[in-house]
Amino acid sequence: MQNIRDYVRQTASAAKTAFYAVSTASAAQKNAALLRTAELIKQHAADILAANAQDMQQAEQKGLEPALLERLKLTENTVEAMCEGLRQIAALPDPVGEMDEFRIRPNGLQIGKMRVPLGVIGIIYESRPNVTVDAAALCLKSGNACVLRGGSEAFRSNMAIAKLITQALRENGLPAAAVSLIKNTDRESVGAMLQSPELIDVIIPRGGKSLVARIAAEARVPVIKHLDGICHVYIDQAADTEKALNIAINAKTSRYGTCNTMETLLVHEKRAAEILPLLAAKYAEKRVELRGCPRTLAILPDIQTASDEDWDTEYLAPILAIKIVDNLTEAVAHINTHGSRHTDAIVTESYTDAQTFLRAVDSASVMVNASTRFADGFEYGLGAEIGISTDKIHVRGPVGLEGLTSQKWIVLGNGQVRG
Amino acid sequence: MQNIRDYVRQTASAAKTAFYAVSTASAAQKNAALLRTAELIKQHAADILAANAQDMQQAEQKGLEPALLERLKLTENTVEAMCEGLRQIAALPDPVGEMDEFRIRPNGLQIGKMRVPLGVIGIIYESRPNVTVDAAALCLKSGNACVLRGGSEAFRSNMAIAKLITQALRENGLPAAAVSLIKNTDRESVGAMLQSPELIDVIIPRGGKSLVARIAAEARVPVIKHLDGICHVYIDQAADTEKALNIAINAKTSRYGTCNTMETLLVHEKRAAEILPLLAAKYAEKRVELRGCPRTLAILPDIQTASDEDWDTEYLAPILAIKIVDNLTEAVAHINTHGSRHTDAIVTESYTDAQTFLRAVDSASVMVNASTRFADGFEYGLGAEIGISTDKIHVRGPVGLEGLTSQKWIVLGNGQVRG
Repeated sequence: MQNIRDYVRQTASAAKTAFYAVSTASAAQKNAALLRTAELIKQHAADILAANAQDMQQAEQKGLEPALLERLKLTENTVEAMCEGLRQIAALPDPVGEMDEFRIRPNGLQIGKMRVPLGVIGIIYESRPNVTVDAAALCLKSGNACVLRGGSEAFRSNMAIAKLITQALRENGLPAAAVSLIKNTDRESVGAMLQSPELIDVIIPRGGKSLVARIAAEARVPVIKHLDGICHVYIDQAADTEKALNIAINAKTSRYGTCNTMETLLVHEKRAAEILPLLAAKYAEKRVELRGCPRTLAILPDIQTASDEDWDTEYLAPILAIKIVDNLTEAVAHINTHGSRHTDAIVTESYTDAQTFLRAVDSASVMVNASTRFADGFEYGLGAEIGISTDKIHVRGPVGLEGLTSQKWIVLGNGQVRG
Repeated sequence: MQNIRDYVRQTASAAKTAFYAVSTASAAQKNAALLRTAELIKQHAADILAANAQDMQQAEQKGLEPALLERLKLTENTVEAMCEGLRQIAALPDPVGEMDEFRIRPNGLQIGKMRVPLGVIGIIYESRPNVTVDAAALCLKSGNACVLRGGSEAFRSNMAIAKLITQALRENGLPAAAVSLIKNTDRESVGAMLQSPELIDVIIPRGGKSLVARIAAEARVPVIKHLDGICHVYIDQAADTEKALNIAINAKTSRYGTCNTMETLLVHEKRAAEILPLLAAKYAEKRVELRGCPRTLAILPDIQTASDEDWDTEYLAPILAIKIVDNLTEAVAHINTHGSRHTDAIVTESYTDAQTFLRAVDSASVMVNASTRFADGFEYGLGAEIGISTDKIHVRGPVGLEGLTSQKWIVLGNGQVRG
């Protein structure tokens, strides 16, 4: 076999060449390729499921943990969901070529911006084969080429899916290399992607924290990512009790393993004695383990004491840290110090407190009287999501088609020269 | 002296704390600090000039090259220009807190975006002391804290300026650490900045290509930068002759050392015989050396032959490479292959060719019938410019106040929870 590094770089280089074709393809052409992919996946569902069964068998033999096996497994329903995802992405407006902000300068130049794709997007992911379809579809729709590097355990599933995408691209006059699956699952192929800023414009890792952290540490290519979702709900002095209870319960218990789940509850000291016992009873029903600060323990004496580490932990489990704060200022400071810039909410009826919180909390999503669980591309109306960013440049929060583009300057003149 | 790394990290950490104060400061407060800095610089111009004279003397003793000495030197006029720059930045609209794109979701949530500062901006620059003022002012106005690391040769000048900025911040109730000058000029202090992604949110290098390349290679913090300005003018088959001549002359000869100067001229084969001799005569008057492709040499037999390397070179000098192309497609392909994604222009009267060029050229600024020399924050109406980006994420082209911000999501609810 060819040197892995060279193979990855050749693949990325072909994707880069393909980018110039997909970046200027019409929306009709891109949508036709997406819809044709959905048709082909539906027609060849049995092949995909057979490949996935082989992947599953091998993964079980290797003793992969149940959570990973669950992510790997495809069913007729999940295959149909892939097709539905493709149809939804085809139905979204095309962001490419949108022009905006044109102003006329004193010398008559018209200067504005055009939204354009980023180039070649590298997607590095783990065992979910549906990422192959989602990522390819979002990148294609936004006019980008992509280089996909999936996990070794999903290799056969990914190959079966990628083959159909390639066919759909070709049938619609688009270069097959616009969606390039890396047919190698050694670690070295990830390294080669991370070290190729001249071929890959941005990397989006999809997976667990250790994967993302390693990529962020090693990458010489810009990375759009999130590591942690340490989300807070702050129950303000002026909170409505019912909204506070509903939001605090929903933000923690509607799902435990998602990055937009609340991990720490902050409560204003004037409301703690009233609200915490009500909440504790509801959390007990859901078997959520509570860990409190000393003042919380004075109200809820039976719960665990939170350690310093708890304030910085994303549990992804039925565990909740609770802290009583003196005021809004302390709540904001706690969030900006211990949060992960993901999603934080205030429950309040106070206009001024809401305004202060919205402005001062330095997170990708800041909410008033809503559950943190809404931080999601579909809920925000993006139509789809390729990931979530807790970084501060380019794009924050749920990343949809717009996050896969940027704006270049357009200057329309009539012969102007600079004096 | 303290360990350099620790000193830099403590400075950046103080800037990060100061960020939370400046990020929520009112426009009035920030503008007052900017205007007060201008007053103080005017009052203390003699001190600044004296410090600069010491820097100049030392630099001359060390035998610095004339170009560097020129950048280092301050005069009464350049000091007054700093003050005028501060007043102009104070007069710009404050981008922080602008809200936009609010939509109502079916569940009643109002979801939109708020423009917010990025956090702590690291500026690494060379010998120009005026960068200290410009960068501090743009960062402060956009609600960011900054860590400034200027060149060793300008140390005394930078210290004299930074002292006045500190005073103006304090007098206006803003933390002095919001503008933090690194009082160390060892290379290690740059390295410490580049390796601190948890303290510095983005680095903007200002200086020559070797500085920027080193920073881009070593940085673990996102970098907003440009390396090269290999700008093209393409004279299309449908070009107006007079516009073509004016733009080609202006783009090359109005200044030779700027990144938006044309380095390669592309000419449609059907127009070359008519236009190239006219241009060659004008370039000869300006003593611009021409280097041509073989077909160009058939028309201009007395010029040098361009080597492969010429197409990838930013001359920053009175030298121009000229290539005759078969058509628009070849011109676009040449630009996307050999250009530096900075600024490229077409001269054409053809609506269709203009549209194709605007869409297909993958550069930060794409122009029709205008000189590449307009690619500049002031010319684009940004009011000021902290740099130019040829990267593809976050911001492309001239970077003004908006480029120093990003948008977070704002979710306004009424007690909504997720089903």
